[in-house]
Amino acid sequence: MNDTTPNRVEAYWRSMTEAAREKPDQAPDEVRARVEAYWPTLTAEPGGTDYLETSVAGLPALWAVPTACVHDRVLLCLHGGGGVSGSIYTHRKLFGQLAKASGTRALLAEYHQAPAPVPAEDAVTAYRWLLEQGIDARNIAVAGDSLGGGLAVSTALRARQEGLPGPAALLLISPWVDMTVSSTTFETNRDREAFFYREVVQALATLYVGSFDPGDPQVSPVHADLRGLPPTYVQVGGNETLLGESLQLAENARLAGVDVRLDVFPDQLYTFQMAAGTMPEADDAIRKLATWVGPRLGPA
Amino acid sequence: MNDTTPNRVEAYWRSMTEAAREKPDQAPDEVRARVEAYWPTLTAEPGGTDYLETSVAGLPALWAVPTACVHDRVLLCLHGGGGVSGSIYTHRKLFGQLAKASGTRALLAEYHQAPAPVPAEDAVTAYRWLLEQGIDARNIAVAGDSLGGGLAVSTALRARQEGLPGPAALLLISPWVDMTVSSTTFETNRDREAFFYREVVQALATLYVGSFDPGDPQVSPVHADLRGLPPTYVQVGGNETLLGESLQLAENARLAGVDVRLDVFPDQLYTFQMAAGTMPEADDAIRKLATWVGPRLGPA
Repeated sequence: MNDTTPNRVEAYWRSMTEAAREKPDQAPDEVRARVEAYWPTLTAEPGGTDYLETSVAGLPALWAVPTACVHDRVLLCLHGGGGVSGSIYTHRKLFGQLAKASGTRALLAEYHQAPAPVPAEDAVTAYRWLLEQGIDARNIAVAGDSLGGGLAVSTALRARQEGLPGPAALLLISPWVDMTVSSTTFETNRDREAFFYREVVQALATLYVGSFDPGDPQVSPVHADLRGLPPTYVQVGGNETLLGESLQLAENARLAGVDVRLDVFPDQLYTFQMAAGTMPEADDAIRKLATWVGPRLGPA
Repeated sequence: MNDTTPNRVEAYWRSMTEAAREKPDQAPDEVRARVEAYWPTLTAEPGGTDYLETSVAGLPALWAVPTACVHDRVLLCLHGGGGVSGSIYTHRKLFGQLAKASGTRALLAEYHQAPAPVPAEDAVTAYRWLLEQGIDARNIAVAGDSLGGGLAVSTALRARQEGLPGPAALLLISPWVDMTVSSTTFETNRDREAFFYREVVQALATLYVGSFDPGDPQVSPVHADLRGLPPTYVQVGGNETLLGESLQLAENARLAGVDVRLDVFPDQLYTFQMAAGTMPEADDAIRKLATWVGPRLGPA
């Protein structure tokens, strides 16, 4: 990883590809340790933000509390990592930046890794826990990147199924929502991609779906009945292989009557928002998320 | 940086040497950004530890508060970075690990960078601030690595000069205490060292001393009158070029009647404790610091 490369996000993903090439048989623990160590290096400390650990239904969780925030407004934040890596610590600063920009608290909730359906069950448990803490659903947005983006959609859908009041908004960063790995952008963006080649995503998807059919809406929320989803903002990089499923999700949600905003960031890669505080494009994206979500939360 | 290298600390310091070789004219901001991004990758999250930002005399500071700790016992923690880099964020996890192991809170206090004497003035200001918060001096240990180790010694000396009650103990990790850069270990450990070659340390020392004579005790506390220092624990790596000044500091303190413990860790490099949670030798060192300091703090 070379931090003088103009695009640090690209350097990071390429380093993941190199590591896999150098050692194709790397153990899951090695991958997890690498992500744990290097993912956070891309993100700057937000500053003026406290971090308080808690426990949600026996799983670790972390409050990010900006000095200037409305305590009753909460972003429930679900980290990515392909269902095999990532944690409340890798994404601490990213969601801290988002909370600070939004003037809200963030609850980063841990979930069990692959296979489904436990990750999605854990995510909705965290949402229910927030309601039990007295946070009004109208003041909760669910945010997630990569698998966390898919889990954010699932959380809104499951909340509805369980008769809970739904969240006020969804903030989806490069959401991974289609385990069939069938978007044409796996080919059309292959030369621009740095890590998430079809075979990589296929391997992760196989682990994630477990005994589900890959097209089952429970693992691939892009195929779910999306009616009743709250206002949803999708951000995706123009150079991602996963661009196609973000476009499809936005399209399907629109057809289902959802208030959708989709921003495709030209030349950007997967979850480039991880460079918040260190790359202007990431700061711009975070600012857009914050500006969009503010008016969609209930009165402060 | 290759995280499959057995010793990740060595890989880190070598990467700093490589970066300097590739670009000898790197701007201070580049160095600072690299340290800010990569230093923390060596340290694991302690877990079960909250981080609360505060401000001490206009400078940023960070409380690390382990779930299980005695609130009235505090480690005042001064980060290293050669007077040109490092921050309360680079050292967040290291001092969080130390606080958690010690069952205390830690206050990481920022200070102005080089030149002297402002860094040492800021450090004693942070110490005075702790007293003003009602923390009993008998329950405060001052901890620091590299320049932070030297500042810890200066803080105890200045507290005495200013008529303040002195801290209960000093925890010094590879302390940088001699700006004359004259230890024989700069030669004898040159082949084992990975970054802190004489010319590197000389350049940093020149920046740090400013208008002081390099041998002045105000910038080189190894040459100070050390009488009255509290019990002091020095940890140093056997492979460091700076080994010599740690040995000299321990010797001078002993001659001055100070209760000193010195541990030289064979085969280890500068501030290897930064690998806490990821390298057994670092965990062992942290445990030793915690076990030693406990009985030296006042009654819980």
